[in-house]
Amino acid sequence: MSHETVKVAIQGWPGANHDIAARTYFRDKEVTLEPCMTFHELFSKVKEDPSMFGIVAIENTLVGSILANYTLLKDSGLRVRGEQRLRIKHQLMALPGQRIEDIREVHSHPMALAQCEDFLMRYPHIRLIESEDTALSAKKISEGNLKGIAAIASSLAAKMYNLEILAKDIETNKHNYTRFLIVGPRDEEEGARLLSMGRLNKASLVFSLPHEEGSLSKVLTILAFYSINLTKIQSLPVIGMEWEYLFYIDVIYNDYQRYHQSLDAIRPLTRNLTELGEYEAADTLYVTNGGAPVAKAQTSNKK
Amino acid sequence: MSHETVKVAIQGWPGANHDIAARTYFRDKEVTLEPCMTFHELFSKVKEDPSMFGIVAIENTLVGSILANYTLLKDSGLRVRGEQRLRIKHQLMALPGQRIEDIREVHSHPMALAQCEDFLMRYPHIRLIESEDTALSAKKISEGNLKGIAAIASSLAAKMYNLEILAKDIETNKHNYTRFLIVGPRDEEEGARLLSMGRLNKASLVFSLPHEEGSLSKVLTILAFYSINLTKIQSLPVIGMEWEYLFYIDVIYNDYQRYHQSLDAIRPLTRNLTELGEYEAADTLYVTNGGAPVAKAQTSNKK
Repeated sequence: MSHETVKVAIQGWPGANHDIAARTYFRDKEVTLEPCMTFHELFSKVKEDPSMFGIVAIENTLVGSILANYTLLKDSGLRVRGEQRLRIKHQLMALPGQRIEDIREVHSHPMALAQCEDFLMRYPHIRLIESEDTALSAKKISEGNLKGIAAIASSLAAKMYNLEILAKDIETNKHNYTRFLIVGPRDEEEGARLLSMGRLNKASLVFSLPHEEGSLSKVLTILAFYSINLTKIQSLPVIGMEWEYLFYIDVIYNDYQRYHQSLDAIRPLTRNLTELGEYEAADTLYVTNGGAPVAKAQTSNKK
Repeated sequence: MSHETVKVAIQGWPGANHDIAARTYFRDKEVTLEPCMTFHELFSKVKEDPSMFGIVAIENTLVGSILANYTLLKDSGLRVRGEQRLRIKHQLMALPGQRIEDIREVHSHPMALAQCEDFLMRYPHIRLIESEDTALSAKKISEGNLKGIAAIASSLAAKMYNLEILAKDIETNKHNYTRFLIVGPRDEEEGARLLSMGRLNKASLVFSLPHEEGSLSKVLTILAFYSINLTKIQSLPVIGMEWEYLFYIDVIYNDYQRYHQSLDAIRPLTRNLTELGEYEAADTLYVTNGGAPVAKAQTSNKK
C-alpha cells in the first residue's frame, strides 16, 4: 500500500484535537502537519498553498457553532472538502512514575479545564493553570521534566510526549462531540470523481432572508419538496438598519441533480445564496482512542 | 418617582457587561447586584430566591449561541422573563495620569483581548495578560495602584474604579452585539399584566424532531400559517443511537391566542415541546455608553 503524503494545517499543537481529526480523516495518507496558532493564520496558509488542506472545528455539541470560523471560511473563498466528527476525551497525564498525590498543578486550555470540572473538584488542593493549548501543556511538562505538574490533553499527546495517564476519560459530559470541516481550494476533478462514485451527498450553504412572514418556511418547504434534508440550521442576525437574517444550513441528498435544481428553486427567494462546499457526509460517528482511529469497518461491525 | 428595588444576579464583576445589561433592562428600578463567578452559580442563586432575577448572555453576533446557558436554563425550570441587547464596546484604561507609552501590560478576559486584536497589534511591546473578568482587571489596577498596567473593560468599569480611558472603543468589529435573557421564576400575574397591555409578543421554545424528511419544514410552515414569525433558530444534534435534533427557536407574534393555537398545532409533530418563557421583545437595539442607556425615545427620534 503506497502512502500518499498530504499537508494539513491544524489549529494548535501536534497531539491536540485538530491533529487527531486530521489523522482520522486522512487515515489512508501520510499526514504532514502545519501547526497554526490561530484560525486566521490557518486560513491564510491554506490560501497560499493550493496543495494544502486545513482542519477547522466548526461546531461542538456543548458550546454550539463556532461562528467566527464560518466567517473566516466565507471570506477566504476556500471550499469545504469534507467533514470529520470526533468524540472529545480528556486524560490527566504527568511524568512517568508520578502519582496523583504528587500533583500540585494541572495545566490545560480553559475549555478543557472547564470540561473536567467534576473530576477536578475531587482534588481541591490542585491548582488549575490555564494555558493556550492542551497538547502544548503536555509538551512543556515533558520537555521541562516538570514534577508535580499534570496536563489535561488527549491520549495521543500522552504518547507523543511520553507522559503517563493518571486518570482516563475525565470529562464530565460524555456527549462532547466536535465536528471539523476539511477546507481547501475548489477541486472540480475531485468533485467529479466523488460524484461518479455516488459519494457526493452533502453541502454547506449560506444565504440571507428578509425578516418577512414565512420566508424561511418557504425555503425549507421547497427543499423538502426536492427531497433535500437538513442536518443543521443556524440563524444569525445581520446588524444594519433593519433586521435581516443570515442562515447557515447543511443539507444531505441522494440525487445530485435534484440538489442543484433545488438551489435554482430557492435562489429567487433568498439573497446571496452561496455554496460553501459539496462533499461526502461523515456517515459514521468516529470515536478515536487517541490517534488510532476506530476504522469505519470496525464500528459498523456492531450492528 | 419612587425607586423600586430589584435583586439581580449577574455573571462577572460589577462594571462588566452583565452589569450594564442589568442596569439597562431595569433602568426604572434600583438594582442590587448579586455577582456570580459562573453561570451555574447564577442559576442556583436565582432558583433559591424567588425575589431574584438573573441576567444571562445567550448569544453574540460574533461567537453565536451560548448553548451551555440554554441547557442550564432548560434544566433549571426557570423562565425567560425578558431580553436585552447590548452593543459590546471595549475601552483601554489605566490609573489617572498614565499615558499609553507608560503601559507595559494589558489585562483582560481572553475574549476581550481577542476582540481588540487590531488595536493591540499597534503596540507590540505591550504584553497581553489573560484574566477571568474585564471589570475585575480594572478593579485590581485601581485597588493595587498598579502603574504601567492597563485593563480592557467597559466605560462603566472605568467610572466605578476611577480609571482614565487611554483609548476609546478599541474593539476591531463594531458589529459586536450580545443578547441577554432575563430569567426568573414563573410569574402568572406579571404575564397577565403584560398580556392585558398588549406587551406579551415573544416566546422562546425548545423541541426535538426525528430526522425525517421535511419534519422541520412542516413545523415552520404551520407557524407561518398562524402568522408566527421566527427571530432565531438553532439546531443541535442529540447524540444517541440515531441522530435526532433539538431546536431552539424564538418567535414573535401579534395575537397571543393565535400563538397558543399554533403551539397546539405543532405539538403532535414535535417531541418534548417546551416553552422556556413568554416575554416582551426588545424592539429597539439599545446602545449603551457605559451605564447610561440611550433611552428608547431618544433612539427612535432618528426615524
